[in-house]
Amino acid sequence: MIYNDVSQWVKNEGEEPIVLSSRVRLARNLDHVLFPTVASANDFKVVQDYVHPILSSQYDELSMKDVTAVERLMLVEKHLISPTLTKNSEGSVYISKEEDVSIMVNEEDHIRIQTLSNTLDIEALYNQALAIDQEIDQEVNYAFDEKLGYLTSCPTNLGTGLRASVMLHLPALAMLDKMPQLNYSIQRFGFLVRGIFGEGSRDLGHVYQISNQVTLGKTEQDIIDDLIYIVHNVINQEKEARQALYNHYEVQLEDQFLRSYGILKYSKLIDLKEASQRLSEVKLAYDLGMIETKPFNFHEMMVKIQPAFIRYKTNENENLYRAQLIQQHLTMKQ
Amino acid sequence: MIYNDVSQWVKNEGEEPIVLSSRVRLARNLDHVLFPTVASANDFKVVQDYVHPILSSQYDELSMKDVTAVERLMLVEKHLISPTLTKNSEGSVYISKEEDVSIMVNEEDHIRIQTLSNTLDIEALYNQALAIDQEIDQEVNYAFDEKLGYLTSCPTNLGTGLRASVMLHLPALAMLDKMPQLNYSIQRFGFLVRGIFGEGSRDLGHVYQISNQVTLGKTEQDIIDDLIYIVHNVINQEKEARQALYNHYEVQLEDQFLRSYGILKYSKLIDLKEASQRLSEVKLAYDLGMIETKPFNFHEMMVKIQPAFIRYKTNENENLYRAQLIQQHLTMKQ
Repeated sequence: MIYNDVSQWVKNEGEEPIVLSSRVRLARNLDHVLFPTVASANDFKVVQDYVHPILSSQYDELSMKDVTAVERLMLVEKHLISPTLTKNSEGSVYISKEEDVSIMVNEEDHIRIQTLSNTLDIEALYNQALAIDQEIDQEVNYAFDEKLGYLTSCPTNLGTGLRASVMLHLPALAMLDKMPQLNYSIQRFGFLVRGIFGEGSRDLGHVYQISNQVTLGKTEQDIIDDLIYIVHNVINQEKEARQALYNHYEVQLEDQFLRSYGILKYSKLIDLKEASQRLSEVKLAYDLGMIETKPFNFHEMMVKIQPAFIRYKTNENENLYRAQLIQQHLTMKQ
Repeated sequence: MIYNDVSQWVKNEGEEPIVLSSRVRLARNLDHVLFPTVASANDFKVVQDYVHPILSSQYDELSMKDVTAVERLMLVEKHLISPTLTKNSEGSVYISKEEDVSIMVNEEDHIRIQTLSNTLDIEALYNQALAIDQEIDQEVNYAFDEKLGYLTSCPTNLGTGLRASVMLHLPALAMLDKMPQLNYSIQRFGFLVRGIFGEGSRDLGHVYQISNQVTLGKTEQDIIDDLIYIVHNVINQEKEARQALYNHYEVQLEDQFLRSYGILKYSKLIDLKEASQRLSEVKLAYDLGMIETKPFNFHEMMVKIQPAFIRYKTNENENLYRAQLIQQHLTMKQ
């Protein structure tokens, strides 16, 4: 399942097309073991020995040493592990059947608990992560300071150890060049806008992640409440931008989007950047009722067209396979 | 017919897809009337009075004064009159039912006899034009000099008054950037390469006209023989260029051509230049067996997408109508 398809919760689309996913992550460390950034092979083993009995009965374990380079990258593309974990062969990840929970061990921190969903119910994701956290807490001693809170490898995670993020499809704000301004105003609240895979992936398919920058000096509830407030605000801005685009450029937009559809439908070779942009445009056109395609799951497509996802399936030319894949999924209504 | 559709001989495609059309033109003037470049309204009338009785029973007459600006441009787009004739309201044209003969009166010269076809049989076109020439010659006195031959307004037409030209679809030579070199070598033989509508239209749909530059000091037979020799040579070069493209860039070409098909099939707005280029690419792909479209007549499409042709049909946005028109004509084989 993990290597053959996108996660089930991605396949089941959420209610709001602008929201692709929400994610909560808790960073935790054991208090008597060196942190992974300075740990030895033996330290990694100690962590594993603590965690394995707690998690292995409930989750599938994947040890990085048993996983090929392509498979590691696929797990990153599915947001089940971080790029950091791919670099540590002593690391491992525990994944739920539905692929909506992943617990990384020996990543930048000893334990990173992550929960994912296709809705905006971050509260529920947090509670789900917290339950796992408490289960582990009963068996280990976390590195915790009365004043600072949970201790982490990187000071940006200190305190709550909580990172909550929402992945949004914001094509209209991007087309109207509103993203820098949005990013600026969000930063003032201690939140960040990044691309689909964090820094450096900005603009791929007009997909953006909004997450808290600050983990210290705010309660978990405040972080979650502020994120939900900001995300609702951004969704409204995107909706207004879509309406503005539609009102001012209807025919030109329809031309642009239909051309993108035509290219997706007939190209023989298509790279990731172009495919992402054109899929985003067709999705926007679909959401605006400008193109009568059969419903298609944009998030699912954005995962399936990623390089490692394709490399795992085929030795064919990546751009050739990507074009064929899109053509199988995208169809106009007759 | 003239304003509602393309000429019948264009609809009946020729045998060689690279050859769109051949054309022969004879320039003639009456010897006792001022040439059109310096003529008065009365001189124009004198010419008309001579020519009308000879031609009006065999051909449909269109006087420029009865023809709207859009209709004049359409006649140019159909190659039935020259841009020069559109500027003289005292001018007129006699056109055969099949639109394969057009005789312009009071253009740059008093009489210009033109014959057109979709084959390379320039000999037959010349004989057809000559028969009309002789019919007129029986009733009028041509301006003719024993030493110089037929006298014309512009010295470039002096002598035989013959211009023979062939319109070719040369996408592979154009894509390989061979046209400047080809033009250079052809000029050395006294021939010229121009775009589909003469100078300034270069590159529109990769359609090129090859015609003789010299009308003096060569017999009609030499001009025709040389043209046929050169055209056969160019056709062979184009065929070699197509094979070279196919051998070296098969997948990339297929991608480029299929994208052009997709854009033609789905764009909402398309301008003349882009439509011409993409139709040319799809036609090349069809000729190379790379795209399985239903057969389509490239020459016919190149006429139908011209601005005046569209303006006559509709008051809608030109680019909108052009896109719809192409979508009606272009279909993939199922």
